[in-house]
Amino acid sequence: MTTTTNMTIEALTDLVVRAFLASNVSDENARIVAQALIAAQIDGQGGHGLSRVASYAAQAASGKVQGRVTPKLSHPKPALLKIDALNGFAFPALSMAINELPAIAQTNGVAAAYIHNSHHCGQVGGHVERLAEAGVIALMVANSPPAMAPWGGSTPLFGTNPIAFAAPRADAPPLVIDLSLSKVARGKVMAAAKAGEAIPEGWALDADGAPTTDAEAALQGTMLPMGDAKGAALALIVEILCATLTGANQSFEATSFFEADGAPPGVGQTLIAFAPDAGFTARLEGLLSTLLAQDGTRLPGAGRQSKRMAAKTNGLNVPDHLLTEIRAIAG
Amino acid sequence: MTTTTNMTIEALTDLVVRAFLASNVSDENARIVAQALIAAQIDGQGGHGLSRVASYAAQAASGKVQGRVTPKLSHPKPALLKIDALNGFAFPALSMAINELPAIAQTNGVAAAYIHNSHHCGQVGGHVERLAEAGVIALMVANSPPAMAPWGGSTPLFGTNPIAFAAPRADAPPLVIDLSLSKVARGKVMAAAKAGEAIPEGWALDADGAPTTDAEAALQGTMLPMGDAKGAALALIVEILCATLTGANQSFEATSFFEADGAPPGVGQTLIAFAPDAGFTARLEGLLSTLLAQDGTRLPGAGRQSKRMAAKTNGLNVPDHLLTEIRAIAG
Repeated sequence: MTTTTNMTIEALTDLVVRAFLASNVSDENARIVAQALIAAQIDGQGGHGLSRVASYAAQAASGKVQGRVTPKLSHPKPALLKIDALNGFAFPALSMAINELPAIAQTNGVAAAYIHNSHHCGQVGGHVERLAEAGVIALMVANSPPAMAPWGGSTPLFGTNPIAFAAPRADAPPLVIDLSLSKVARGKVMAAAKAGEAIPEGWALDADGAPTTDAEAALQGTMLPMGDAKGAALALIVEILCATLTGANQSFEATSFFEADGAPPGVGQTLIAFAPDAGFTARLEGLLSTLLAQDGTRLPGAGRQSKRMAAKTNGLNVPDHLLTEIRAIAG
Repeated sequence: MTTTTNMTIEALTDLVVRAFLASNVSDENARIVAQALIAAQIDGQGGHGLSRVASYAAQAASGKVQGRVTPKLSHPKPALLKIDALNGFAFPALSMAINELPAIAQTNGVAAAYIHNSHHCGQVGGHVERLAEAGVIALMVANSPPAMAPWGGSTPLFGTNPIAFAAPRADAPPLVIDLSLSKVARGKVMAAAKAGEAIPEGWALDADGAPTTDAEAALQGTMLPMGDAKGAALALIVEILCATLTGANQSFEATSFFEADGAPPGVGQTLIAFAPDAGFTARLEGLLSTLLAQDGTRLPGAGRQSKRMAAKTNGLNVPDHLLTEIRAIAG
């Protein structure tokens, strides 16, 4: 059983910031990255949360991730931002995009930000949510180290290539949709392998492209895309929009987001923001209330507000093995 | 067995144009719509091809579709076009968007066109392909009359809400990806019902939301989304981008694309164009050649060029029942 220790968000943030400061990360970047990881942990996305602190810190310490850089922003065309993350963490580059995009989208109707030389972007829904809080409709795509084969193939070529979307609502927090294009998260296969358990058929193929229920064989093979051939086609769309278009590394060129050695992953993220007209939120409420009028339905991302409120009031129960790990780095 | 008659593309175009001219469609619109339907037929997308002529003509004759209107274009913000299709056919509005968008995307980096008061947009891949031929990367989403329930529900709310994507290539026709978000096309269920055959489990639910293999029950029920809950979430993203954002009818408000009676469907389409930089096509070739180096893979949309060449050289074999139908309308 996992034992936990209750901590306030402030105390936890201070601790994680100190771990990064001890790992050659600048003050500003340490705070941005710590907040992003803790926000994911609060939302129940542990795979993008505190479990990442140790590997992030090791990558910053080794220089695989440049923890002290400030991303370089350019504005080459009226509706387009380009951000070179300079092989630093993704979150400072994303914050820059999120700060600048809404005004540019309002002026131009639509706007995009292309990020390259980037790293793991964590909980993708969190980024589009911030754009929606600033009043725009947002779509984001990202790539990641190779995990899925093209349809019919057996060698990883695409990442799990997530798509996220958010839209502002009238009197409620934004609608947020956040999905990866693999049928299940690779983390579930990693957990099964660690526990020595089998995985259900349909999750993954082995290294020869054959269906497997052996979690270890699956980790050597490829994750299956959601929706089979159609999902693989979507992964190709995402790959082109966030990497081929931005000049980032393609997924198959990207190094691990976990290991401290090797070249930087250099992946890409593309954010697109659309300025809504005056009638948008009323129309959205009409759609969402019609959807929710059906028994058995719910909105994607519902439930995250209560988790956040609970964390603010009661603090977060942090698994002790992670706490030990982070404290050792913070020194 | 279906008997066919071989016709040149020119003769077939003349015939379809005459059928529309006899149905209160203007010269210019008749030609644009005929070309779009015949192009889909040539590409093997019969469901978006000549089988539509009779129902299109009937809708124009009844006034459900305004066959004589010229879509109204406005350019409210630098990177945004809005096109009111004025309850005419979709193709004239789409042609307008396709003509204008590439230059606006080149100037602004990215640009979007929102179409509302629109109709069936046919083979979605054909539209983005034309944008890619004009040098931009293109993404398009569209909605359609209700066919899929929200996840957990049992009443149709979303259309099959297609996504299409195209990118220009160096020395080859554009890469084109075109997929609807239902697991299979509704046309396959209609064909099974007509033939009195069962459908595989996993395609559709009955009107109570239970899985069914009865094609008739499936037509009364809902199509299942590709990728299950994730596909339903994608359908919601598409719905918001092409309808809530554009001011078009939501799918659940849209009337049939087939029946001649009732209010116009008033659906929406959104096209987004991205201007590539100088290195884009070389990077894309790197990605595609790595993909194709794996045994068993192919590019989406491969094979359409040979079909087009064959149709140009040898003409098209048109099913006689369709030819009879179209000739009767053309008079």
